[in-house]
Amino acid sequence: MSIKTSSREAFIGATAVLLRRQGYSATGLNEIVALSGAPKGSLYFHFPAGKQELAAAAMTEAGCQLAGAIEAVLANSEELAQGVAQLIDALALQLETSRYADGCPIATAALEASRESELIREAAACAFDSWLAALEARIVADGLDRAAAARRALLVLSAIEGALILARARRELTPLHAVRDELVALCG
Amino acid sequence: MSIKTSSREAFIGATAVLLRRQGYSATGLNEIVALSGAPKGSLYFHFPAGKQELAAAAMTEAGCQLAGAIEAVLANSEELAQGVAQLIDALALQLETSRYADGCPIATAALEASRESELIREAAACAFDSWLAALEARIVADGLDRAAAARRALLVLSAIEGALILARARRELTPLHAVRDELVALCG
Repeated sequence: MSIKTSSREAFIGATAVLLRRQGYSATGLNEIVALSGAPKGSLYFHFPAGKQELAAAAMTEAGCQLAGAIEAVLANSEELAQGVAQLIDALALQLETSRYADGCPIATAALEASRESELIREAAACAFDSWLAALEARIVADGLDRAAAARRALLVLSAIEGALILARARRELTPLHAVRDELVALCG
Repeated sequence: MSIKTSSREAFIGATAVLLRRQGYSATGLNEIVALSGAPKGSLYFHFPAGKQELAAAAMTEAGCQLAGAIEAVLANSEELAQGVAQLIDALALQLETSRYADGCPIATAALEASRESELIREAAACAFDSWLAALEARIVADGLDRAAAARRALLVLSAIEGALILARARRELTPLHAVRDELVALCG
């Protein structure tokens, strides 16, 4: 791996961590550089359009990683309901062990910046779409037709996203547990 | 109404608008003052703790307003499912007519600032709790026991919150329509 490649990855990794914990507006380039450990001079070499471009790249990367995790969990679950429950339990564990800092890696920046930045809006939409596609494919495999599966996938992802907001505001996992139990009953 | 009272209300109203559209971190006191039309000098008279205190007051006010609207819609609906559908349709209309700017008045600031500000976290949690209480009461009236109604209310609110995120990122209402159809089927 060249030094340039690893600087780029370090910037993306640091940005993803900060976007997830504090969002887009509160995250400054100096903070990203400090957390990344990479030389500041190389930031505009890799991301000539600056923070917006870097944030979109970090959201795309985080979206891909989570899409892979969702696919893996759902593929390893015999029952759809069991897969959805495992997914929610994994997110609940991340939230709790991070003291309610690490929720959805995309939602905060999506809400803050989708209106001002088309780059960020598209990165958020692509990430959500990739998660929906993984859910929808598994729901179709469970027997629903494509249109019904698309609606069900939107319900499942929306409920998880919303429960992550409520859990962070309340500092407790009840919203995630309730949504898990309701979705398991619905998908079972 | 005294000038002092109306300045206070103008600050709160302007803050609520800005928090809903762009979130907490991107909203500066100068922008709030400019939008409010109230004299800057009176801001620290009304909110000695500054932006945090003002944001919490605006979230509390927006939370109360939406709680009242939720209660009114649910009280005027013969069927629970119909009430939930009307609620979602009203939120979808606000989102669309504002060009996807006006989503949940609480979610963005809750995600950004719940970790750094206990005042904001509490204001967000109280707003969500008041909406949940309205939903739960209506679900209990529909025949579910208190524990099942609490879970169902958490599913309904979480799904709506999440669908508002997805709709803003995708700039289209499909997520809200899908969640409405799924919840109507579940509550019907």
